Amino acid sequence: MLDLTFLGTSSGVPTLYRNVSALAVKDSHSKDWVLIDAGEGTQHRIQQAKLSLQQLQVICITHVHGDHCYGLIGLLASAGMSGRRQALTLIAPIEIQTWLEATMRLTDLYLPYPIEFIDVCTLADGHAVNSRLHIQPHELHHRVPSYAFSISATQHHSKLNTAALTQIGLPAGKLWGQLQHGQAVEWQGQTLDPKDFVQLSSQTVRVLVAGDNDQPQLLASACIDAALLVHESTYDQLSLDKVGPTPMHSSAQIVAQFAQQQHMPHLILTHFSPRHHNTEGMQRLADEVRQHYQGSFYLADDFDQYHLDAEGMLTQVFSRMLTEG
Amino acid sequence: MLDLTFLGTSSGVPTLYRNVSALAVKDSHSKDWVLIDAGEGTQHRIQQAKLSLQQLQVICITHVHGDHCYGLIGLLASAGMSGRRQALTLIAPIEIQTWLEATMRLTDLYLPYPIEFIDVCTLADGHAVNSRLHIQPHELHHRVPSYAFSISATQHHSKLNTAALTQIGLPAGKLWGQLQHGQAVEWQGQTLDPKDFVQLSSQTVRVLVAGDNDQPQLLASACIDAALLVHESTYDQLSLDKVGPTPMHSSAQIVAQFAQQQHMPHLILTHFSPRHHNTEGMQRLADEVRQHYQGSFYLADDFDQYHLDAEGMLTQVFSRMLTEG
Repeated sequence: MLDLTFLGTSSGVPTLYRNVSALAVKDSHSKDWVLIDAGEGTQHRIQQAKLSLQQLQVICITHVHGDHCYGLIGLLASAGMSGRRQALTLIAPIEIQTWLEATMRLTDLYLPYPIEFIDVCTLADGHAVNSRLHIQPHELHHRVPSYAFSISATQHHSKLNTAALTQIGLPAGKLWGQLQHGQAVEWQGQTLDPKDFVQLSSQTVRVLVAGDNDQPQLLASACIDAALLVHESTYDQLSLDKVGPTPMHSSAQIVAQFAQQQHMPHLILTHFSPRHHNTEGMQRLADEVRQHYQGSFYLADDFDQYHLDAEGMLTQVFSRMLTEG
Repeated sequence: MLDLTFLGTSSGVPTLYRNVSALAVKDSHSKDWVLIDAGEGTQHRIQQAKLSLQQLQVICITHVHGDHCYGLIGLLASAGMSGRRQALTLIAPIEIQTWLEATMRLTDLYLPYPIEFIDVCTLADGHAVNSRLHIQPHELHHRVPSYAFSISATQHHSKLNTAALTQIGLPAGKLWGQLQHGQAVEWQGQTLDPKDFVQLSSQTVRVLVAGDNDQPQLLASACIDAALLVHESTYDQLSLDKVGPTPMHSSAQIVAQFAQQQHMPHLILTHFSPRHHNTEGMQRLADEVRQHYQGSFYLADDFDQYHLDAEGMLTQVFSRMLTEG
């Protein structure tokens, strides 16, 4: 149902191995995708990950800090220079719109396609990307207004009541197909209503992707029925205790404890401080999560790909750690 | 005297192999360096090229187009997060200052060091970086105001007149050293003035780095006595003829003809349209230059390093083409 590609997993600054925040969430059944955050260099990662700027439907920006948005404008410019003419939806804090307009004016930037800007704090009912994908923001707690985004993918099924159709003598074939596609059918002087012969159902799976946040419990309601939580864990608990609360970030321990309370089946942590960008640092974070959380979890790496299926099962389908040995 | 590292050589958009514009010009005798342009992802290239944001003295922005400046703010932010407290000089069109201030306000960016902004069009007498490096802008012709920057490195020499010192009987040693360093010396009741025994001289070498420009002849005076011209050649002549004059860029042929007229000893072309990012495309550009220019020339590649010595001789000291076979 949903394919996730991590395009940047570093907090604050890029390092040689990890770029700053960006996450692609793609509908598994089409080419449509949504980008959550766009730190500087996100367009480079998009090229490397072979994602298409032409198929990008929506960009969500969680908050205005540079490591989450400084790649936005170069990406929009490149999409235009690469031939994009289709409108693009941008869901973000209102400052991002002001910044985009100022940048376009001051740097002589013309975009040959419309940007449909949605102020994130006006989006109480969420945004339907298409008949399958839906985006819902949730407020977080950080040094500036920050948001999580629920991305839901819905698969619609229609099941024909073949027993009933056989009973009234309608022969299998084209007319069955018309009923299944919701069209009324004339049969022996009667009008057959598809509602009477077709059972509609749907299956929805949801991932919850949080921006910077020091209070995971704000996501308690949003976590209900979500298959996967993606959350920052900038520090391990020891580092967070040293740094203090001022940066308003979460530790691996805080997020793991929250995910355990919520019985989240799957958890992916990201947005790691450069101090943890080494084997020992990642090991400490993993140990901390394991100690407090019993679900399945991953520490995201750039280019990691995950598949979330219709039953909400999560599988890692690519990791450069594996290909690079 | 000067070491050049190309950090981005693509025009408009980054490609998998080439990033957008940025060039590091370093004093060979110290760690001080100057950055000319900062397309998105320049801070990533700086890390990869092992240059230090702490030793960066001046950033010059040739013009406001995004492929020359969208990496500026992330780079400034990262320098701050990496501990920079020393002032940084920014020489750029005034719009860049307005954009920086708007971005800082809208994205909650605090820089823990001062930016000393210089509006490039007020810099008639140039800017002395230190006693060795000097920057002089020159006006170009493009869709927006665009500039070239001359970077001069000066080596100061002081030569002791040892014959004269021997003649008056001053023994070689500490006192000779004091004279050479410009200090007066007491000797047998006399005060020896260093001016009478030390001959001062200096040697200057200059590279001229142009931003986007369709009229190289505007640099005719600036080329006099310059050792090296670095100029955009976005297209080969055939592509420029097809594209037409609207983008206001130069072809390899136009720049080569100009460099030949000016008797420039060395020429490096850069800022290549993605259509030329392949072996055949580069070959066409090289053939075109060779046909119209008899000096030594290079088509820059990302990470290329060149050394310009005190005599103005240019040597390529690194190319990833060579290391990658």
